Amino acid sequence: MRVSVPLRRAYKLINHGPTTLITSAAGTKRNVMTAAWVMAVDFDPPKIVAVVAADTFTRTLVEQSGEFVVNVPTLRMIDVVYAAGQRSGEDEDKFAQFKLATSPASIVGAPFLDGCAAWLECRVVPEPHMQERYDLFVADVVAAWADDASFRDGLWRFERPEDRTLHHLSSGAFITSGDIVQAKS
Amino acid sequence: MRVSVPLRRAYKLINHGPTTLITSAAGTKRNVMTAAWVMAVDFDPPKIVAVVAADTFTRTLVEQSGEFVVNVPTLRMIDVVYAAGQRSGEDEDKFAQFKLATSPASIVGAPFLDGCAAWLECRVVPEPHMQERYDLFVADVVAAWADDASFRDGLWRFERPEDRTLHHLSSGAFITSGDIVQAKS
Repeated sequence: MRVSVPLRRAYKLINHGPTTLITSAAGTKRNVMTAAWVMAVDFDPPKIVAVVAADTFTRTLVEQSGEFVVNVPTLRMIDVVYAAGQRSGEDEDKFAQFKLATSPASIVGAPFLDGCAAWLECRVVPEPHMQERYDLFVADVVAAWADDASFRDGLWRFERPEDRTLHHLSSGAFITSGDIVQAKS
Repeated sequence: MRVSVPLRRAYKLINHGPTTLITSAAGTKRNVMTAAWVMAVDFDPPKIVAVVAADTFTRTLVEQSGEFVVNVPTLRMIDVVYAAGQRSGEDEDKFAQFKLATSPASIVGAPFLDGCAAWLECRVVPEPHMQERYDLFVADVVAAWADDASFRDGLWRFERPEDRTLHHLSSGAFITSGDIVQAKS
């Protein structure tokens, strides 16, 4: 079940470096794009940065709307995660093509991808120089959600192998999130 | 054995989101700091971004020298990875405290941490606004290295459990890099 995550804990949803799917929408158009280069830059209020390349349809939609959702997919979605990074959504609707179900987000116009483990609703903080020079977008996380089968009480669970997150190595090879280990303090 | 990695492949050393150790040096001082918020932002020539908080000794050394090394530690080093994020190196030498052996880097003044799986030598690209506002440093990767037991021919191996990379969840709980899985193309 999708449950709200307190904003002060939002960074935890991507702190371990999962590859994500960025959804975006503007006017009647929407898109989904694979993004490995997404990370937290602040805790509370939470901020992230994401690379959205200049030649992508997602870039157009993010610049038009000032919003996007960072979806955190699981092993079940590996083929979609790879394929969504290989094709453009400008000419074809990738949601239809990959049979992806969506749900409305709570604040932003971009949709949630159903079946993911976590969702960060993001609003761009305009930094034109960084956007132009490095394709880097700074965003406030304005709402955060998680599937309580995967993330509960501020902790990732990974109880079932198919719920593990994906971390892209290269060329469609990923690692899944492995065993949880605790450092001595 | 530490071997050179072509710069076009440097992004692969951190693409899966490992938690890193940043080493820095200026004058007679040096330091090591845990950094989960490090990611690639460009392939070739490779660039990364890293969050280095304003109140850290590493920040002082990076601002003085304009250089740092991103070291990618493995499961063997979990206790050091956690501890190095909990203490400041301003008053005590963390290398001595944690018995960390180092080697000279090839280009920058910051040292390599021995026992890691990969090393990125980085030179800061001055972006004063991003540094001040978000503690975010952009850097060129000027040389890249890997232990060939962990990364060979452009691919991560993870053949031994103790060679797996660490990905911080929170409060000293990490995941290790899990199984390698291949998407259908």
